[in-house]
Amino acid sequence: MSEKKSQQPQLPPTGAIDNQYLHLSENWFEYRVRVQPHHTDYAGVVWHGNYIAWMEEARVECLRSIGIEYTDLLALGCELPVVEMSIRYHKMLHLGAAAVVKTRMEEVTGVRINWDYAIQSTDGQDLYVSAKVTLVAKDMEKGKIMRQLPPGVKEVFAKLSASNKS
Amino acid sequence: MSEKKSQQPQLPPTGAIDNQYLHLSENWFEYRVRVQPHHTDYAGVVWHGNYIAWMEEARVECLRSIGIEYTDLLALGCELPVVEMSIRYHKMLHLGAAAVVKTRMEEVTGVRINWDYAIQSTDGQDLYVSAKVTLVAKDMEKGKIMRQLPPGVKEVFAKLSASNKS
Amino acid sequence: MSEKKSQQPQLPPTGAIDNQYLHLSENWFEYRVRVQPHHTDYAGVVWHGNYIAWMEEARVECLRSIGIEYTDLLALGCELPVVEMSIRYHKMLHLGAAAVVKTRMEEVTGVRINWDYAIQSTDGQDLYVSAKVTLVAKDMEKGKIMRQLPPGVKEVFAKLSASNKS
Amino acid sequence: MSEKKSQQPQLPPTGAIDNQYLHLSENWFEYRVRVQPHHTDYAGVVWHGNYIAWMEEARVECLRSIGIEYTDLLALGCELPVVEMSIRYHKMLHLGAAAVVKTRMEEVTGVRINWDYAIQSTDGQDLYVSAKVTLVAKDMEKGKIMRQLPPGVKEVFAKLSASNKS
Repeated sequence: MSEKKSQQPQLPPTGAIDNQYLHLSENWFEYRVRVQPHHTDYAGVVWHGNYIAWMEEARVECLRSIGIEYTDLLALGCELPVVEMSIRYHKMLHLGAAAVVKTRMEEVTGVRINWDYAIQSTDGQDLYVSAKVTLVAKDMEKGKIMRQLPPGVKEVFAKLSASNKS
Repeated sequence: MSEKKSQQPQLPPTGAIDNQYLHLSENWFEYRVRVQPHHTDYAGVVWHGNYIAWMEEARVECLRSIGIEYTDLLALGCELPVVEMSIRYHKMLHLGAAAVVKTRMEEVTGVRINWDYAIQSTDGQDLYVSAKVTLVAKDMEKGKIMRQLPPGVKEVFAKLSASNKS
Repeated sequence: MSEKKSQQPQLPPTGAIDNQYLHLSENWFEYRVRVQPHHTDYAGVVWHGNYIAWMEEARVECLRSIGIEYTDLLALGCELPVVEMSIRYHKMLHLGAAAVVKTRMEEVTGVRINWDYAIQSTDGQDLYVSAKVTLVAKDMEKGKIMRQLPPGVKEVFAKLSASNKS
Repeated sequence: MSEKKSQQPQLPPTGAIDNQYLHLSENWFEYRVRVQPHHTDYAGVVWHGNYIAWMEEARVECLRSIGIEYTDLLALGCELPVVEMSIRYHKMLHLGAAAVVKTRMEEVTGVRINWDYAIQSTDGQDLYVSAKVTLVAKDMEKGKIMRQLPPGVKEVFAKLSASNKS
């Protein structure tokens, strides 16, 4: 067990996120996407369910940008399933268009993690989608919600969400 | 124009929905699904975004059950895009499991149509997902929200949503 | 181990498939589908990658119809990943259309299982897609291809593929 | 008509592709992907149908890299649907892994365009998937296969496929 532990992923020191975070504009992490044929529906625009995949990708890449690989969390026995989601569709996004999925960890309350989303045109002039997604930390072995975030993760998340509030 | 109209899809008389509606249990339309490998993610459960597809299928089939083919609406120049959606994930749904997507048109306010959802186990003992979805009637040619629902559609929807309130 | 075995899924006696198989037309298993908005792309027809999901569903349901639940195979430690696939697209399938995915286990050679596909209109007049898919039995624990099919499975598959040749 | 033409997308002069093409390694266009949770299935690896989407994305981006926007082709009334596809799955690709989708236009015969694919690890040591995809130029208005590629497109494609043969 301890041997296995030594092979386990190490989360980065919380100080490490400072520099990386500077790359975000106004505390939003930006994830670029482009509408490919398989994203569209008969109306020539992104099918409404496909935004969910982009939002997940942006979330995973945001965590990676601050040193947390999602597979490392899983290796620690911690999963982050979505428990709640609300989406508003403002404007259609057409085949071939480029867009930016902006996301930020808005708040961490115990083991609940709230994310904000805005999917915009690359020039920031058009808002296509706004959304909120709530994750919860789940103990994969027990199949239950965790009492608290794994050590290391907690500090990183606290720091990240605090910087978004200020 | 009038010739084109004669070829246009005819919506059913509003009386026709009465009998069909008896097949619903407590005014919910029931749409059966089964979790196939492609619905799952690494955790062996339905990936959270895939419920959106099932919910759309249930909605389209509910409309078909009362005589409204979605392609007929499109032929009338009326599209029903999703403008809002909120979902709560209560319990994981595993590979191979059967489930029922229950849906009903909860309310029609002008051109906004609200749907309720409950995705349950086939015995009704487990609730996996609950959701609300709002559609809006859009004029496909003008690319704008309609002022009112197309004639025929309005009456059918009013009757359907009224029966769900009683 | 033996206790675990007693809880393991039991595959049906090979005689059991005879009657069920009569439901197939000319030895093809038929799986009904309907083109929903999320299946389409900007051209208003099924996006070419979405047929893969239907083909998988038809395969899983064909196995279920002869008493083999895919999750039971997994519980036996046997997975059936796709190792080869070839598809020909003959005709577009439009939004709202109903179709039949016809499939049959064409041949079993050791641990390789070949399936044939024809996706047709419900009246059999139009052919949309034809395809061949090869699965291989994989030992999930070892992560390697099995030397032979699990006992029980082998007999059922042999019988099924033989009946398709005659 | 001529006015409309003036607004139509202009394809680049065929000389323009020379420089851009230098960015390809050994004439393969490289498209980076990462396995996100929504790409995986219950086995923790990319679901076999999801590679089709990546292959399409790589194809579209390859064309963009030589100055052909897919939406410009559509505006010219020319669509490039997939008519044939064969795929071999060599090795599983796991959650969180990065990979490269390598593609090249292998041959153009009349209006048929053949693409080769190799999906590899970023260090080129592992081959996950190899594939061939055939597109055909279709006249969107007539709904029929074109007799020849649109002017401009033909020259660009000829140049591109020739450079891949040498």
